[in-house]
Amino acid sequence: MQIPKYIKRIDNEWWFTEDDRDNLKISYRIKDIVFSQMSDIQHVMILDSYDFGRMLVLDGVVQTTSIDGYIYNEMIAHVPLALHKDPKKVLIIGGGDCGAAKEAVKYPQVKRIDMIEIDELVVKVCKEHLQEVSGNLSDSRVNFIYADGVKYAAKSKEKYDVIIVDSSDPVGPAVQLIELPFYKNLYKLLADDGIIVCQSQSPIFHFDIMSQIYQRMHSLFNQTEIFIATVPTYPGGLWSFTLGAKEPIDFKIDEFNKATKYITGALIERCFILPRFMKYFNE
Amino acid sequence: MQIPKYIKRIDNEWWFTEDDRDNLKISYRIKDIVFSQMSDIQHVMILDSYDFGRMLVLDGVVQTTSIDGYIYNEMIAHVPLALHKDPKKVLIIGGGDCGAAKEAVKYPQVKRIDMIEIDELVVKVCKEHLQEVSGNLSDSRVNFIYADGVKYAAKSKEKYDVIIVDSSDPVGPAVQLIELPFYKNLYKLLADDGIIVCQSQSPIFHFDIMSQIYQRMHSLFNQTEIFIATVPTYPGGLWSFTLGAKEPIDFKIDEFNKATKYITGALIERCFILPRFMKYFNE
Repeated sequence: MQIPKYIKRIDNEWWFTEDDRDNLKISYRIKDIVFSQMSDIQHVMILDSYDFGRMLVLDGVVQTTSIDGYIYNEMIAHVPLALHKDPKKVLIIGGGDCGAAKEAVKYPQVKRIDMIEIDELVVKVCKEHLQEVSGNLSDSRVNFIYADGVKYAAKSKEKYDVIIVDSSDPVGPAVQLIELPFYKNLYKLLADDGIIVCQSQSPIFHFDIMSQIYQRMHSLFNQTEIFIATVPTYPGGLWSFTLGAKEPIDFKIDEFNKATKYITGALIERCFILPRFMKYFNE
Repeated sequence: MQIPKYIKRIDNEWWFTEDDRDNLKISYRIKDIVFSQMSDIQHVMILDSYDFGRMLVLDGVVQTTSIDGYIYNEMIAHVPLALHKDPKKVLIIGGGDCGAAKEAVKYPQVKRIDMIEIDELVVKVCKEHLQEVSGNLSDSRVNFIYADGVKYAAKSKEKYDVIIVDSSDPVGPAVQLIELPFYKNLYKLLADDGIIVCQSQSPIFHFDIMSQIYQRMHSLFNQTEIFIATVPTYPGGLWSFTLGAKEPIDFKIDEFNKATKYITGALIERCFILPRFMKYFNE
């Protein structure tokens, strides 16, 4: 195998360095390059690291890891699914690691999950080589559609009870996934009593982007709330998600009995309580 | 100035690399080495970084930064001080960056804060060069004692309403700060209705150490509870603190009106709600 440019041998050890930020570089010592290949879209890599287990790396940027992927995926999936009274149809935009879909199939009332992922190779590779995150997802309710999420949202005529936008960082073409036309299309696809959740970046390092996402969703949805979780492998650790709904939501969780590692019913209620520097969002 | 060994020039830029972990290295691009000197105890450095502002670095390990030091310091100080009915005498072990003491002086009922820091140079340097964290603390109620916290706890005859153990990572001599004899001495120094809080490392990367701290405190104190916060510059982001008390605590906060950036009254109540993988600690 050709060694990808992101990997270097230093003092007889293999190191992968995340190199996308100007002022901060994180280097992970790795045991093995499990998979490395260019798709039509991007460079797709699965690394086996010492501290984080297996990691999905796209164009040299860590997307999720075995050690903490469940935190992000449980938060983005269970918060809307547990708050919705009867989620039957779910749309996931992105989420190629299959982690959000793996959580969504834990709801027996969910009849169909349309998963719109632009890069088929990511799904294939995560199912095969990143099972701690994907759970080798094979549930007939999951309907994989390999397409551009922005285009799908523009042309689809479906109605969904829950929409999950599990997008990558808003750089390059992914910027469209945080723009108003995209949110307007998702609004149209959401049932009247539906709930949408979008990952909305780090409150510490991307405060402006988070605020933009909130403002744009707030301009459309009657109810807009930010919730947070700690995702160790994302810069700043603290991560935000923005929830939107057309009708008021009851934030009380009576019972939460899903098999999870991070989230609990109490945490779903409490994740909307924000630090003071973010507090005005949910007031 | 001699360039400290932790700093390297790469492609015409200055980078500081935290090099203490076997499998993960974090490199910060820096603007300036503000201070660099050996004390009797350790190498003390203040760096001005692009992403985190000024940082305190001891023996090459980042201790606190301008961008997020307030999160840690507000959590370790306000949780016990706000939960205590009438905190008059406070003991801080460690905390040389003065950030915990800076929060403690916000309580007018506090009459004296004994701060036991082993390294006078750290206090001096943080007061002068890290004012975002230390607030250039100058409050006559703070009584600086430059001594070994373990020895102080063994010989002191004082009684404190609140004890804060703001220790560095438990390596080398600092290991004693998480051992049972030290906790036994702190138990003795704590008033009957007093509250103690110890930083107890990362639930993700130091689960065993956190569990040890909890078990040891639990063997002494009638009430022992873990609370958490996200501290971006610590590995794993998610950070734990362990609270101990001899008498049951009322966790209801009626009013919290301190000038803070992170903590709120609701957050003090919420920070004890733990992820499922930690949940059995507080049950």
